[in-house]
Amino acid sequence: MARNLIGKNLVIGSFGESHGEGIGVFIDGFPANFFVDLEKIQLALNRRKPGQNQYTTSRNESDKLEILSGLFENKTIGSPIVFFIRNNDSKSKDYDNLKDVYRPGHADATYDLKYGHRDHRGGGRSSARITAGWVAAGALAMQYLVKFNIQCRAWVQQIHTIRIAQSVEFPSINDIDSSPVRCPDANTSQQIEAFLDTLKETGDTAGGVIHCSVQNLPAGVGEPIFGKLQAIIGQYLLNINAVKGISYGDGFNSVLRTGSENNDTFIGLQENALLTSSNHSGGSIGGISNGMPVEIDVAFKPTSSILSAQNTINTQGESTTIKIDGRHDPCVLPRAVPIVESMVALAIMDLLLENKNHE
Amino acid sequence: MARNLIGKNLVIGSFGESHGEGIGVFIDGFPANFFVDLEKIQLALNRRKPGQNQYTTSRNESDKLEILSGLFENKTIGSPIVFFIRNNDSKSKDYDNLKDVYRPGHADATYDLKYGHRDHRGGGRSSARITAGWVAAGALAMQYLVKFNIQCRAWVQQIHTIRIAQSVEFPSINDIDSSPVRCPDANTSQQIEAFLDTLKETGDTAGGVIHCSVQNLPAGVGEPIFGKLQAIIGQYLLNINAVKGISYGDGFNSVLRTGSENNDTFIGLQENALLTSSNHSGGSIGGISNGMPVEIDVAFKPTSSILSAQNTINTQGESTTIKIDGRHDPCVLPRAVPIVESMVALAIMDLLLENKNHE
Amino acid sequence: MARNLIGKNLVIGSFGESHGEGIGVFIDGFPANFFVDLEKIQLALNRRKPGQNQYTTSRNESDKLEILSGLFENKTIGSPIVFFIRNNDSKSKDYDNLKDVYRPGHADATYDLKYGHRDHRGGGRSSARITAGWVAAGALAMQYLVKFNIQCRAWVQQIHTIRIAQSVEFPSINDIDSSPVRCPDANTSQQIEAFLDTLKETGDTAGGVIHCSVQNLPAGVGEPIFGKLQAIIGQYLLNINAVKGISYGDGFNSVLRTGSENNDTFIGLQENALLTSSNHSGGSIGGISNGMPVEIDVAFKPTSSILSAQNTINTQGESTTIKIDGRHDPCVLPRAVPIVESMVALAIMDLLLENKNHE
Amino acid sequence: MARNLIGKNLVIGSFGESHGEGIGVFIDGFPANFFVDLEKIQLALNRRKPGQNQYTTSRNESDKLEILSGLFENKTIGSPIVFFIRNNDSKSKDYDNLKDVYRPGHADATYDLKYGHRDHRGGGRSSARITAGWVAAGALAMQYLVKFNIQCRAWVQQIHTIRIAQSVEFPSINDIDSSPVRCPDANTSQQIEAFLDTLKETGDTAGGVIHCSVQNLPAGVGEPIFGKLQAIIGQYLLNINAVKGISYGDGFNSVLRTGSENNDTFIGLQENALLTSSNHSGGSIGGISNGMPVEIDVAFKPTSSILSAQNTINTQGESTTIKIDGRHDPCVLPRAVPIVESMVALAIMDLLLENKNHE
Repeated sequence: MARNLIGKNLVIGSFGESHGEGIGVFIDGFPANFFVDLEKIQLALNRRKPGQNQYTTSRNESDKLEILSGLFENKTIGSPIVFFIRNNDSKSKDYDNLKDVYRPGHADATYDLKYGHRDHRGGGRSSARITAGWVAAGALAMQYLVKFNIQCRAWVQQIHTIRIAQSVEFPSINDIDSSPVRCPDANTSQQIEAFLDTLKETGDTAGGVIHCSVQNLPAGVGEPIFGKLQAIIGQYLLNINAVKGISYGDGFNSVLRTGSENNDTFIGLQENALLTSSNHSGGSIGGISNGMPVEIDVAFKPTSSILSAQNTINTQGESTTIKIDGRHDPCVLPRAVPIVESMVALAIMDLLLENKNHE
Repeated sequence: MARNLIGKNLVIGSFGESHGEGIGVFIDGFPANFFVDLEKIQLALNRRKPGQNQYTTSRNESDKLEILSGLFENKTIGSPIVFFIRNNDSKSKDYDNLKDVYRPGHADATYDLKYGHRDHRGGGRSSARITAGWVAAGALAMQYLVKFNIQCRAWVQQIHTIRIAQSVEFPSINDIDSSPVRCPDANTSQQIEAFLDTLKETGDTAGGVIHCSVQNLPAGVGEPIFGKLQAIIGQYLLNINAVKGISYGDGFNSVLRTGSENNDTFIGLQENALLTSSNHSGGSIGGISNGMPVEIDVAFKPTSSILSAQNTINTQGESTTIKIDGRHDPCVLPRAVPIVESMVALAIMDLLLENKNHE
Repeated sequence: MARNLIGKNLVIGSFGESHGEGIGVFIDGFPANFFVDLEKIQLALNRRKPGQNQYTTSRNESDKLEILSGLFENKTIGSPIVFFIRNNDSKSKDYDNLKDVYRPGHADATYDLKYGHRDHRGGGRSSARITAGWVAAGALAMQYLVKFNIQCRAWVQQIHTIRIAQSVEFPSINDIDSSPVRCPDANTSQQIEAFLDTLKETGDTAGGVIHCSVQNLPAGVGEPIFGKLQAIIGQYLLNINAVKGISYGDGFNSVLRTGSENNDTFIGLQENALLTSSNHSGGSIGGISNGMPVEIDVAFKPTSSILSAQNTINTQGESTTIKIDGRHDPCVLPRAVPIVESMVALAIMDLLLENKNHE
Repeated sequence: MARNLIGKNLVIGSFGESHGEGIGVFIDGFPANFFVDLEKIQLALNRRKPGQNQYTTSRNESDKLEILSGLFENKTIGSPIVFFIRNNDSKSKDYDNLKDVYRPGHADATYDLKYGHRDHRGGGRSSARITAGWVAAGALAMQYLVKFNIQCRAWVQQIHTIRIAQSVEFPSINDIDSSPVRCPDANTSQQIEAFLDTLKETGDTAGGVIHCSVQNLPAGVGEPIFGKLQAIIGQYLLNINAVKGISYGDGFNSVLRTGSENNDTFIGLQENALLTSSNHSGGSIGGISNGMPVEIDVAFKPTSSILSAQNTINTQGESTTIKIDGRHDPCVLPRAVPIVESMVALAIMDLLLENKNHE
């Protein structure tokens, strides 16, 4: 399959560019005869859209959902579901000075090297605006998962060096969204806000870690050998712009324990779940969900669009300097929360549909 | 595609079980008319096989390569290349006591929950012995990559809390293999050996981090939007048994820097590469290789087969204890080095073949 | 891959419904940096669109091409190319009486049995209007093929019992389109026109055979074992509405000859082609093109929308009668000519991109 | 997916060569925990194997089934099922004179043009011996289909100009196999036998038509838009060596009727089936099964290995003559009957697994 598509049973195709007609998503394989709550999808888009508050770019997009295919009387009919989100406030002129200069950390240069031609306006296809489509698709997938009582929830765990000290109980969306930086621990949130206020003044950016937790995933989801739960989820998450690492359960910290310390003791067996005394594994064994919560950490680098002048090269390879003027987020993590949730939901739904294929 | 297959242009199918006839790999899409050095593939298998030294399981397998398809006069002819490695020293009896009890941390229970039936002998299909086929396929892919001067090299960076303090220059295979734990820093290697000697006495196990570096990958490899270099490599690596996290470049540490500190400054442009003053990104921007080395960290949990008695449940969900007697590695990382190398090579070759598809 | 997508290297996703927002096509894998002549794509759509002349439905659609993604300054940039064609003259009211009754020969009943829910307006997703997207995609593919001097050309060979007696030389588009029924043999065309004039009066419909010829396809295209040239082309053609059979070269007539009569004698060898004294095989041997013209016949059944009253059942399974009032073609073959051409072009381009994957 | 693989939910990989180690098949996606009757698979192989009677090649192969993966205690466990059939009586020497000369009608030349290298012994990978693996896989699929009461049955309908005059009732395997040419109509069989006896004396070959009928396929199988029942079945059948055409229901003959004559009148509705007064469509409408029998015709050209001297070219393109001495079938259709059955069964099982993916 060509690489703007992902998934086997639920195939997601991502199209559009930051400063073209708009952003869209093509969804194939979604079960027919399913009632879709379009308002919930719009709400998910609103969580990702620019201009939400002082920590997000001032680009003004309504990100209004259009349906081009797949629904009749609000129910799916088996044709691909195609959502489209038009670009309105695309100030292409802001980018005229970027046509011949490569922004450090941006994909301008690698796109030119690869394709010999690019849409230089606002990153074109490499812009994270493409994720609007993913969020719409993910919000649809979540409506499906909820029918099985499966919940995907993501939140900001860490920005720069500030992180939630103690593990949080599975928070509600309200717990998360009542923080302007989507960190459900009030104290940590305030520290992050203060940090970002300062950072914004300098025009610099920060990265961080988003945690995603999946509750009530039944045991048996994930396909060895090459469709392991963590591999499929990872494939989706590692396509998100600025992600530099992911881990499951105790992740890189599990390295610091011995096997006798790290093994999760089995303490019970239910129809669709194992019970374990601890959850170091983060909900999967041998690539298959075990019924315990799936716990995922996603590391985002600080994004590259800083406002101070930087040394770089132009398209001829000559040294020059650049000062980026467009509208950018000091920290993308608050807006990336629904993106992470969506990608996890899409990965899990893809595997869940597969799961029917057994005697 | 069903999930025992991976790849788009170079498709790898993995088959066999730990205690069945043997382990095999089905390789489709490898270019025809390519001379294969079978001895090199056998050497790669030897790096992975059990019984290499005191830190590996004593299972005695020659892991001799058989060719079932795809070669004529040692050249590929376009049919799938199928390698097969027979099981010889499979002591199935060792596992009779495991038929009705779930080993903590092992996939016995999740396989039963998923499939309703499993081969309980030595983990059956969930055994890491399956990776013998991947290593054979990877060794073949590396012969292809070398024609383009691309080098994949992995080594042990950390075991438990012991890690290489300073970054190492790209080591030779000899640098790596002269250490019995495949750690090319002599001082660190000795500490790890001492640690594992002690650990072995207690029957416990350790995890760690394997680092993989890819040199001379030309710019332009990797397919946005959903075939990003890090997503495709990640998909392969996250299917390796016991892997709990992966990261690229500075990975989770990049979180601790601001954008102005983290951006790699462009300092030059070549036909197939960008030059950057630093390599925080680990060789890719926007999901596309930029010509700088690709740097990957892979976290392995300590494996689950410890020799002390453990509490667990049986297949009826009742509490019991278990003592595992089979032959196991105190630390799988030395043997996992060729596995990591192979999975990275397979991912990169898959993308490299794609790369021809442009004007 | 879910089944509204087709292709491996060039993936085509088909979306939309007859009486929804419109019809679209998602094209992934098309090479970047390729200049697209949009006017030629519009011309192809015009050949398929309704209301062309007395032999086509009077539905009045401009079928104007919109571009939602993939082009910048009229050149491809690597994002999926998405074309959209809005529905304008969709008289949904015409179909109100069809909500609860199954039209004989139509997919109403099978869709209900499969999905439990359908868009009953004009066939919804089962309408051949969906092929507008395929024609747009095919017209794009043909621009790519022409760069390699490859020509796909289809025409009406037979309607009902009237067929071109002698084989025709590869006709020009003008030869074909100067006939209102797209039959390049003037005498046969006139007979067909007279037949259709009569048929139209009775409200009945006719089927026929479309022939497609591909010139200058180099030898070596097609992938054994399961991507044989005829299998891939067949997969595309057999998805066209109303197609009931396809054949290559002498097809079903080759049965009537012995091997000694049927073998094409090799008489020369060029860089990209074999020369054979005859072309019974229709341009492929062993599933691989041999450089001779590819010759394909496609059989279309007479379409089901006849105007006379018919016995049928309603959605409850009860006997009833139906009289269909919508606007329909007495014979779809003239409009199906660009569809056949498009599907063949898409199949061949998919294989041609694959063809680069060899040493 | 690379092209030695076919299928989405049930993926079949075909490997091996006529004169290499053997022929194999890799089967991924088959449901776990399914009891396999291996004897039935061997019986299917016996129906395809050479040396059955006077109408088949005298190559003497036992075609004994080996199982390399996927079964434990005769039940599937979720790993790929890999069957292997060793080559025993491969007289490579017979082919030494073919190394530098192209056999008319054979794929020698197109393989050389495509791959630049080939296994010239007995056709190597292009040999129909590859279908042994397909038959093993198909026999497995049929065991799955039978659980749903679905029956695939194929037989010889026509050889050269001799065909069954009247349509036959769905015959038993015994009806078919009691004829040495697998034609269940005794009178026609005798005529064919007499014809082949004569043909054999001249060393010539004959083609024909195999008919395949699928009984009890429930309504709802087949995936619009691009996974139509006829397209998926066609993709499988058109990969069989020597097939030049396929058709469904009345196929090319439906062209000769008008819509009012061709429409199948709906006369009843059951839970999983429509009842129609006729079955011109051959069991599908809109690409979806309707519950009526699926009727398929497959045209085979006369195979190319005739014994008389033929004009041809050598690998340098120079004129020469060739006389083929190997062991060949005067007519491959009797042995192709289980191949057709297998390919149809594999296609239908692939779609049937898909069919679970609906609400």
